[in-house]
Amino acid sequence: MALKSAEQYVDSLRKLQIRAYVGGERVEHVVDHPAIAPHINTVAKTYELAHKPEHRDVMTAKSHLTGELIHRYTHIFQSTDDLIKKIQMLRLLGQVTGTCFQRCVGLDALNATYAVTYEVDQAEGTDYHTRFKKYLTRVQAEDLMLAGAMTDPKGDRSKRPSEQSDPDQFVHVVERRPDGVVIRGAKLHNTGGINSHEILVLPGTGLGPDEKDYAIACAVPADAKGVVFIFGRQSNDSRKLEQGCDAGNPRFGVVGGEAMVIFEDVFVPNERIFLNGETKHVGQLVTYFATWHRANYGGCKGGNADVLIGATAKMTKVLGTDKNAVVKDKLIEMIHMNETTYASAIGASAMGYALPCGSFMVDPMAANTVKQNITRNVYQIGRLSHDLAGGFLATMPDAKAFENPEISHLVKKYHQAKPEYDVMERVKLGRYIEGMTSVTTLVEAMHGAGSPQAQRIVMLMGAKIDEKIKMADAVLNGTDDVEGLPLPGAPKKA
Amino acid sequence: MALKSAEQYVDSLRKLQIRAYVGGERVEHVVDHPAIAPHINTVAKTYELAHKPEHRDVMTAKSHLTGELIHRYTHIFQSTDDLIKKIQMLRLLGQVTGTCFQRCVGLDALNATYAVTYEVDQAEGTDYHTRFKKYLTRVQAEDLMLAGAMTDPKGDRSKRPSEQSDPDQFVHVVERRPDGVVIRGAKLHNTGGINSHEILVLPGTGLGPDEKDYAIACAVPADAKGVVFIFGRQSNDSRKLEQGCDAGNPRFGVVGGEAMVIFEDVFVPNERIFLNGETKHVGQLVTYFATWHRANYGGCKGGNADVLIGATAKMTKVLGTDKNAVVKDKLIEMIHMNETTYASAIGASAMGYALPCGSFMVDPMAANTVKQNITRNVYQIGRLSHDLAGGFLATMPDAKAFENPEISHLVKKYHQAKPEYDVMERVKLGRYIEGMTSVTTLVEAMHGAGSPQAQRIVMLMGAKIDEKIKMADAVLNGTDDVEGLPLPGAPKKA
Amino acid sequence: MALKSAEQYVDSLRKLQIRAYVGGERVEHVVDHPAIAPHINTVAKTYELAHKPEHRDVMTAKSHLTGELIHRYTHIFQSTDDLIKKIQMLRLLGQVTGTCFQRCVGLDALNATYAVTYEVDQAEGTDYHTRFKKYLTRVQAEDLMLAGAMTDPKGDRSKRPSEQSDPDQFVHVVERRPDGVVIRGAKLHNTGGINSHEILVLPGTGLGPDEKDYAIACAVPADAKGVVFIFGRQSNDSRKLEQGCDAGNPRFGVVGGEAMVIFEDVFVPNERIFLNGETKHVGQLVTYFATWHRANYGGCKGGNADVLIGATAKMTKVLGTDKNAVVKDKLIEMIHMNETTYASAIGASAMGYALPCGSFMVDPMAANTVKQNITRNVYQIGRLSHDLAGGFLATMPDAKAFENPEISHLVKKYHQAKPEYDVMERVKLGRYIEGMTSVTTLVEAMHGAGSPQAQRIVMLMGAKIDEKIKMADAVLNGTDDVEGLPLPGAPKKA
Amino acid sequence: MALKSAEQYVDSLRKLQIRAYVGGERVEHVVDHPAIAPHINTVAKTYELAHKPEHRDVMTAKSHLTGELIHRYTHIFQSTDDLIKKIQMLRLLGQVTGTCFQRCVGLDALNATYAVTYEVDQAEGTDYHTRFKKYLTRVQAEDLMLAGAMTDPKGDRSKRPSEQSDPDQFVHVVERRPDGVVIRGAKLHNTGGINSHEILVLPGTGLGPDEKDYAIACAVPADAKGVVFIFGRQSNDSRKLEQGCDAGNPRFGVVGGEAMVIFEDVFVPNERIFLNGETKHVGQLVTYFATWHRANYGGCKGGNADVLIGATAKMTKVLGTDKNAVVKDKLIEMIHMNETTYASAIGASAMGYALPCGSFMVDPMAANTVKQNITRNVYQIGRLSHDLAGGFLATMPDAKAFENPEISHLVKKYHQAKPEYDVMERVKLGRYIEGMTSVTTLVEAMHGAGSPQAQRIVMLMGAKIDEKIKMADAVLNGTDDVEGLPLPGAPKKA
Repeated sequence: MALKSAEQYVDSLRKLQIRAYVGGERVEHVVDHPAIAPHINTVAKTYELAHKPEHRDVMTAKSHLTGELIHRYTHIFQSTDDLIKKIQMLRLLGQVTGTCFQRCVGLDALNATYAVTYEVDQAEGTDYHTRFKKYLTRVQAEDLMLAGAMTDPKGDRSKRPSEQSDPDQFVHVVERRPDGVVIRGAKLHNTGGINSHEILVLPGTGLGPDEKDYAIACAVPADAKGVVFIFGRQSNDSRKLEQGCDAGNPRFGVVGGEAMVIFEDVFVPNERIFLNGETKHVGQLVTYFATWHRANYGGCKGGNADVLIGATAKMTKVLGTDKNAVVKDKLIEMIHMNETTYASAIGASAMGYALPCGSFMVDPMAANTVKQNITRNVYQIGRLSHDLAGGFLATMPDAKAFENPEISHLVKKYHQAKPEYDVMERVKLGRYIEGMTSVTTLVEAMHGAGSPQAQRIVMLMGAKIDEKIKMADAVLNGTDDVEGLPLPGAPKKA
Repeated sequence: MALKSAEQYVDSLRKLQIRAYVGGERVEHVVDHPAIAPHINTVAKTYELAHKPEHRDVMTAKSHLTGELIHRYTHIFQSTDDLIKKIQMLRLLGQVTGTCFQRCVGLDALNATYAVTYEVDQAEGTDYHTRFKKYLTRVQAEDLMLAGAMTDPKGDRSKRPSEQSDPDQFVHVVERRPDGVVIRGAKLHNTGGINSHEILVLPGTGLGPDEKDYAIACAVPADAKGVVFIFGRQSNDSRKLEQGCDAGNPRFGVVGGEAMVIFEDVFVPNERIFLNGETKHVGQLVTYFATWHRANYGGCKGGNADVLIGATAKMTKVLGTDKNAVVKDKLIEMIHMNETTYASAIGASAMGYALPCGSFMVDPMAANTVKQNITRNVYQIGRLSHDLAGGFLATMPDAKAFENPEISHLVKKYHQAKPEYDVMERVKLGRYIEGMTSVTTLVEAMHGAGSPQAQRIVMLMGAKIDEKIKMADAVLNGTDDVEGLPLPGAPKKA
Repeated sequence: MALKSAEQYVDSLRKLQIRAYVGGERVEHVVDHPAIAPHINTVAKTYELAHKPEHRDVMTAKSHLTGELIHRYTHIFQSTDDLIKKIQMLRLLGQVTGTCFQRCVGLDALNATYAVTYEVDQAEGTDYHTRFKKYLTRVQAEDLMLAGAMTDPKGDRSKRPSEQSDPDQFVHVVERRPDGVVIRGAKLHNTGGINSHEILVLPGTGLGPDEKDYAIACAVPADAKGVVFIFGRQSNDSRKLEQGCDAGNPRFGVVGGEAMVIFEDVFVPNERIFLNGETKHVGQLVTYFATWHRANYGGCKGGNADVLIGATAKMTKVLGTDKNAVVKDKLIEMIHMNETTYASAIGASAMGYALPCGSFMVDPMAANTVKQNITRNVYQIGRLSHDLAGGFLATMPDAKAFENPEISHLVKKYHQAKPEYDVMERVKLGRYIEGMTSVTTLVEAMHGAGSPQAQRIVMLMGAKIDEKIKMADAVLNGTDDVEGLPLPGAPKKA
Repeated sequence: MALKSAEQYVDSLRKLQIRAYVGGERVEHVVDHPAIAPHINTVAKTYELAHKPEHRDVMTAKSHLTGELIHRYTHIFQSTDDLIKKIQMLRLLGQVTGTCFQRCVGLDALNATYAVTYEVDQAEGTDYHTRFKKYLTRVQAEDLMLAGAMTDPKGDRSKRPSEQSDPDQFVHVVERRPDGVVIRGAKLHNTGGINSHEILVLPGTGLGPDEKDYAIACAVPADAKGVVFIFGRQSNDSRKLEQGCDAGNPRFGVVGGEAMVIFEDVFVPNERIFLNGETKHVGQLVTYFATWHRANYGGCKGGNADVLIGATAKMTKVLGTDKNAVVKDKLIEMIHMNETTYASAIGASAMGYALPCGSFMVDPMAANTVKQNITRNVYQIGRLSHDLAGGFLATMPDAKAFENPEISHLVKKYHQAKPEYDVMERVKLGRYIEGMTSVTTLVEAMHGAGSPQAQRIVMLMGAKIDEKIKMADAVLNGTDDVEGLPLPGAPKKA
């Protein structure tokens, strides 16, 4: 069967020779590193749940290529129902893990490449699509964990790729051989790459006709020669290593375990190249990816906020404030913001439409509103959580203080809230809330899938202001009044 | 065919002897009154568009009772697709009329009565549902305009219906006869009733077992003996009567032409009674109605805001500010808020589910977020429109000043913005924006389908806080880690 | 004494032959017109209160020119205490009238002209200041009502005054004579001009060196030949004429009775000219005026909001919702927003500083934040008021319905809330809230004293971003650590 | 002279035998611990700046007890000017340190005790005030660093002190001796205590007449027997210990170095007791302290935000986005929020009034709005900073990665933005922004000086809703119209 178990996923990772640096130092093997384990744990959960009968409907799908049962994380969206199920899967996984589970970037990158290779072939007479389907068939059959890699370092933001003083600020082809190409550059904020099987490298921005070398889309094994991962530093990352009650989310990671992935002249054979110089299709590829990905945030962040709301509500019980009407009103506000983005993501999916290749795209306007609201709501939800949880979030002593026999009795005594709750329960809730509202978490929600301004540009274009102006003109000056009906008493035409 | 033309609608209205007061005075016939004509015009548009081939798909449906093609405004929702189509119909009508088109209350009241009569019959052994289906068949066949009537005056808000010092503060049965009942009371904020064929009277609040007389649902012809309509005063209503460029929306009404409808001991024959004393089902009836209705606002207000955004964008062109980046950013913010609620309303529909009677209900949580956001966004959208349109909204002279030859040249000269736009265009845009952001318009959006707090109560109940607490507990303390997998380097169980 | 009584103010107005159009028609005398009377009433209150011993401290001042007791509305600010007292006067008047009392524009225009004439004379060797002091002495001695006139029509907003296709879009000199100049153009949104003694005309925007004809500041009697007032249309203005309970604020006006004032080739004699071609000082004049004026909004709107909050709180008592914790929380939010801007206006005053001429300017940054917050808060305060007051704001019948004996018993019965409150009390509260949150009121708060973007431009310039960057540099890289102190354990210098 | 140098402050600290736990472990001496050094550095800056001639005016004052020049941090506020100067001092220190400088709690606690001891003596015939003045004279003469200690652990928040199952949840007297009392309990969130000379212990909540043992105010040397400090864990605290570029603010602390301070049966001699059982005065003491303290946030957070805005603006230059109009608009929004609270704090000070003892209190309403706005604005300011600074805040590698020769060239290359800026500049800016928006920082701003709801309760009481209702009544129904003036055309009295 095409569904890996959690154990198989970890075993398969172990076989890879991923070159990675964590905390600035080379790690022997990513699977053995305690900073990466929580992220592996989280992905493992995506594999595990696909085997649970109660979740099979949302976690798996039938491959349109082979008819096989596959993980939904390797599926090409065939209908609006598939789009909706994806959002439901994300909310479920968000609720179970309380964090980012990393596989969405790969999924949307697969779908974007699938759709654009079809369109490029139609327009240019190439055969990328057949090549990509072969690759996809293997991904589905082996239930691979894929990391999409989009965001280039970008250097001076006021300049285009070809204008940068360092040409490597965007991944590009530095050598062309008969059997493939050599690429150089880096991708930032790479979610899950460090514990993936494959990296799907896509351009991160639209390109001009003179920027052919930057128009490269390809798949690279995570342990290919020349690939280096440098793990990002997360807020309070060292607490994970302590493995005590300060860890926050004790079993799972904080956001996606993002890393820089650097391509030091990496060779990519032809069968793994899915776009190569067709600059005018790059904008579409970026847009497809971003649109699907922006809708996702209504699902995953919805599930995460469910856990945060639950933790906050629990805290009010621990403190004895849960009966207060204003406290309830603040919980409602958290719920309201969270359900707004979830409903919009479902709406974006329900309004999906078929692309030329036959797969389904979410409604772009709706998808962009989802992400835009997320970039604001996570801060407001965090604020309300801090409000209700109390000032001890800022001043609680270390886990060690709760363990040191000289003072543990004092520390515990003076953190005890309602007697019926264990004091360590309160501590863990506090640390979890801290983690869920840390800078790393907030910034990921702000900038993941594109910064706020990126969404606004799409909205302005998508709003078709000229059509709205026509609507206003028609209402104000229209002459198509009730068909031929001289309405008694109707106002005269202006 | 079951689809009336706009003309037939007006003709059929004319046949009714509706007793109405406008401006505090008895009107001879509603069809002839210039204050009501714009509202009739608006409803006529709903009839007209059902005949347009390009809109047939959203404007009509197939009756599940007869298989006939019927107006969607008389249809019982048979699927999530029906729910989505309703929202699309509302946005279309909102765009075409730039105002409220009134028939939604009747539609949702029909659906609520349909669903609850079925449930009451199942629970109590009554036969309201059959009776109601007969009534509904006629409504569909004759394409009737129905006004739902829900909101009671409520007197002292801290007291229940039976505790009020005036028992008539909620509509109730004052006499029971073998062939029917006599009802007394009033319904406020009645949208479209004054130009409807029928009033569907439903209880407006949950009831206790001792409040049987208040548990009455029934249909009353708009011109039944004892029914009196007292038209509400709208902001700037007298400008409509001037029929000049100060009218705002020149052809259509401002919001729904709301009226008080008073039942002065109105007799209702048995075949028009759909609930009569079954107090414990009243809460469900109210909830069903409100839930469908709250989702609507993402459609109709979406369409209205499209026109307002169009008018505002046009104004920036007239003023010469349209190239400014911050001006564009404000238009984007208007678009963003508008599309958020539209997407959520589509999401609420896509998440719909079948009720016991077989018809479809929208997702309650999503529907309530839609309305809650509307109660805030209309103010923000209005604010941004005022910001971009400029201060002349507050100080522009009367239409007559633009006509009086002594001064019209001056008034026009000094209201001329960019020379390529006619000055009267600017004036009309300004008056339209004023109307769309008037107190009547804002307050309707605030309180229609239930005040903000009503939505919050539903959200709190629907959020299942206890389940979210369990999710947090599982994340923090769960022991169901990756199946039997001693993850290398995994953090120890807390 | 230099303090007119209210009666003297009205009598003196009556002596003027002001040419005015209201509702597009020429009025015989402004004092006799029911649309203008409420505004005259409001200004009369400013005269009346100066005679009340309990208000003398805030309502009057000692002239720095003559040592006489004068109305504070003709005073040149001599200290931060004067600036604070002005804000206190505004809040008092706002509380007493519940609306705009119009004299602030004239006051700030007097102060701006006073300060700039001094600076121009210093720089250019002119003698405008002496001339202006003579004029001011008369204004103080006669306690004149002055209207400042700043805002030009502006035509195409993307063009400068000299670039407009119609040169009259900004007031300018069209003829120069030995004894004076002839001006042409119009000023919009002119507050109180129609019931003033004098108009102080100032340029409305900074000018280039080639725009000398636009650099004109002068005083014009309100009934000078060639001056025409065209009264603006306010939301629901016709209700004032009905003089019944729908009037809103029954005795006082809605905002400032703004009018267009048109200068049809008006001759201004030399002794009334205070700037004439000195283009490089115009920007300063505009800035001085705007800065003082923006701070004002924390006072006047504070007083107005006090009345609105009072009306809303009263309404919750009438409805029986006043004990609800969430209702109280919404009132608190209204209070919070209102007090924020009041405190900031006091702060702006306390941070005032002496200008070259010796008078006092408020802190520009603080003054601009006041106005910026006002442009947002009036909408939020209005929203909360609507929320608490209820849907009847949108649907309440006309005053006549409460009077028509056929239906008045029904209309009253079904608007009765808690029995202990008279039903007409509720009606009047509702109409007052409607008036205070009408488009005219909101837009005045939005655009008066400059549109939101105008404030933001000032803030950006005033923020001295470069100094803040230096602060950040010093914190991050500073070497001035604790003087010569090798702090044990201190982090090493970066 | 009564002004310690920075060096003298550190030397004097070294002489104390403070019992403290950091990271859960006993530290030998606080002065030698690298986690505490940044906080000592920050306080040292307050001593240092008092010696700078350019800052003397805001940093020092003349003692009203001795006439000596003293540090403003030991001064009793003698005028509104003193109150304003305090806010100016806080903004200056906030700009210089970019963090919390800790001495405000002690200052406001000194002032609250000064004022209340006077009032208690007047009411009860005690002589606490004389005793306190003696203590204060020493504080001023020795320029002591004082930490106020207010917040009790509070246990079950739905219960009063005397109802708690553990009586020690609020600090209380457990033994009374002729020469003093023995106290037990703890104070949380104690700012600066760990590096102070003295702790001023005040009750943290109003008390009932049966809670005399909790009504205890007293001064305790920081190294008194039985006093234990347990240092709080801050977000990313371990990075400070690394002393590299990940430290954030490299020289100064993150917020105030808050600690739990535990009183394990600490003996307090009579001359250090300033309230002892006078329960009915405790509420006033708490209110006085909180009111002064809430206004402070407009000063200190203003200065901190200046640095954050500076760092963010610098970042936009480094990235090359600084010319973008929308980027500028976001900076303006940050500035606007920041200046709003600063202006309000100045306003609160300018509206100050004399207390019975002769010292000056800030305006309570204004002070509470300051803090309420802070609890929201820090999140919005943080959000905008994250928006402009970019996603690398969440994913930047460790300092060690920038140092490890295997990868440092890659990490630097791909973090280089505009070539003219050093890459490490960008890194440091990012880490500083991360620190300034971390959970510890945000939560301190949220809950310091009282949680948001505490401010709202004060606002509701202070708003005098009944007076506002009277204002509305007067406007709507007033009969005191323009004195005896039958205004022509005036609307009839309602």
